[in-house]
Amino acid sequence: MTKKSNNPTGSPALAWTVPVGGARFSLQKLSPGDKPFSIGNKTEDKSRITELAQEIDALQDIFWADKRFKLLVLLQGTDTAGKDGTIRAVFKETSPLGVRTHGWKAPTELERSHDFLWRIHQQVPAAGEFMIHNRSHYEDVLVPVVEGFIDAAGTAQRYRQINDFERLLCETGTVVMKFMLHISFDEQRERLQARIDDPTKNWKFSEGDLEVRTQWKAYQKAYDDLLRATSTEWAPWTVVPADSKTHRNLMIATLVRDKLRSLQLRYPPADPELKGLHIQ
Amino acid sequence: MTKKSNNPTGSPALAWTVPVGGARFSLQKLSPGDKPFSIGNKTEDKSRITELAQEIDALQDIFWADKRFKLLVLLQGTDTAGKDGTIRAVFKETSPLGVRTHGWKAPTELERSHDFLWRIHQQVPAAGEFMIHNRSHYEDVLVPVVEGFIDAAGTAQRYRQINDFERLLCETGTVVMKFMLHISFDEQRERLQARIDDPTKNWKFSEGDLEVRTQWKAYQKAYDDLLRATSTEWAPWTVVPADSKTHRNLMIATLVRDKLRSLQLRYPPADPELKGLHIQ
Repeated sequence: MTKKSNNPTGSPALAWTVPVGGARFSLQKLSPGDKPFSIGNKTEDKSRITELAQEIDALQDIFWADKRFKLLVLLQGTDTAGKDGTIRAVFKETSPLGVRTHGWKAPTELERSHDFLWRIHQQVPAAGEFMIHNRSHYEDVLVPVVEGFIDAAGTAQRYRQINDFERLLCETGTVVMKFMLHISFDEQRERLQARIDDPTKNWKFSEGDLEVRTQWKAYQKAYDDLLRATSTEWAPWTVVPADSKTHRNLMIATLVRDKLRSLQLRYPPADPELKGLHIQ
Repeated sequence: MTKKSNNPTGSPALAWTVPVGGARFSLQKLSPGDKPFSIGNKTEDKSRITELAQEIDALQDIFWADKRFKLLVLLQGTDTAGKDGTIRAVFKETSPLGVRTHGWKAPTELERSHDFLWRIHQQVPAAGEFMIHNRSHYEDVLVPVVEGFIDAAGTAQRYRQINDFERLLCETGTVVMKFMLHISFDEQRERLQARIDDPTKNWKFSEGDLEVRTQWKAYQKAYDDLLRATSTEWAPWTVVPADSKTHRNLMIATLVRDKLRSLQLRYPPADPELKGLHIQ
């Protein structure tokens, strides 16, 4: 969180930040239906999101000119948790020129023939860029863990490798924001059902989602473990209660805006050689 | 070094391996004119290099089929130290299909807008590949250090970042061999002079080389520091006395061959479904 924030709703974030080394942390203690960042009714929240998205757009312009930082926003969550919707809402006012997204799928044969961070490193933001990862390298400590393709030692090794990698990014100017979109088992059922009932949403539905749903507890445990192990001083995790889409968007937009404000962005200093120059 | 090596000249390598955390290590204690791996006169040494190169070629074939490992051979050294010549000699029998090389130059604008390991990570070997880096990420703790573009804390941070990065590579199947080609100040003078005197070598000469030569001591110190800080259990440094080109090639070919032997490479097991299959 920012040191100096004008945002009256900034403080609730602390309760949702996974503490570094937080052995007692558990998703079960956090209710997906909470709305800690809400400022009023749904209409008020939505109009605040628009204001925030506009401010993020304005800040992105300076961020790009400033070039001292890179921004990596990383979204994790189960199927239907709302990753796509978050990106659309939070960055709806930002020019596509200023923000890149990358969605991570199962690795290709070429990707599997390298370490799991190889493909990730190629898609990190350059100086001045906003980059959004829709899913991320954290899939590599979720699916293989739940499926039993990797043992505890191998998982612990990956946690360390991830922490080292993210530290490199942070030490070289990248602001890493990691959001875990936290929805309830019931909410997921409703969203999956909607994909079946609404023909225009059928394309979003996959049989595989149902199988993953049967592994809900195993995934929640894998999330608990990774959140505890990889919430670091340089790249902490924030859990976002996400049963309400509006609240989810509001919370993330607020935190992104606050973070950008805290960087004290500025346009590069004026070039003294240009002063008084008259183009002939 | 290998556990079981048939190579009678294997043991001398120990004296040239930079000890992990070796605070007392210094290039000054190692003579560039030494020939610890020599087996006889120059003719005998040269014919041994050919034998080794042939064995490396044969091992590369199994390495590729095996797919359990990746090989990264990294060559560092001052101008004229013999990096190009080493690659030609050691891998002269290996098919270009089986070995890739990448020469690192000053970073481009795009590369500079990322962390210094970003471009390196993109060029690491895939499963079954031999990759040779002609210069490497170690240039990023040489030039900026000597030129004063980075302070001691920044340099120490890069050492750690390098160690973390190489550990990731090693933990995910990469064998990292790091060779520092060690030549004397006098030998460099002769080689630079030859580039001036021999018109067919003029293209290799650059004015910049002379300026770097005036910084000889500063570079030797920067090498001492990085060799001490980045010789790790997972990726140790080997200093190669390189005033003799033949000896340099012999030593590196021997160590690469020994390392490949030690991996106990094997073709993947036969596919039982193919047994007795008759193509109609």
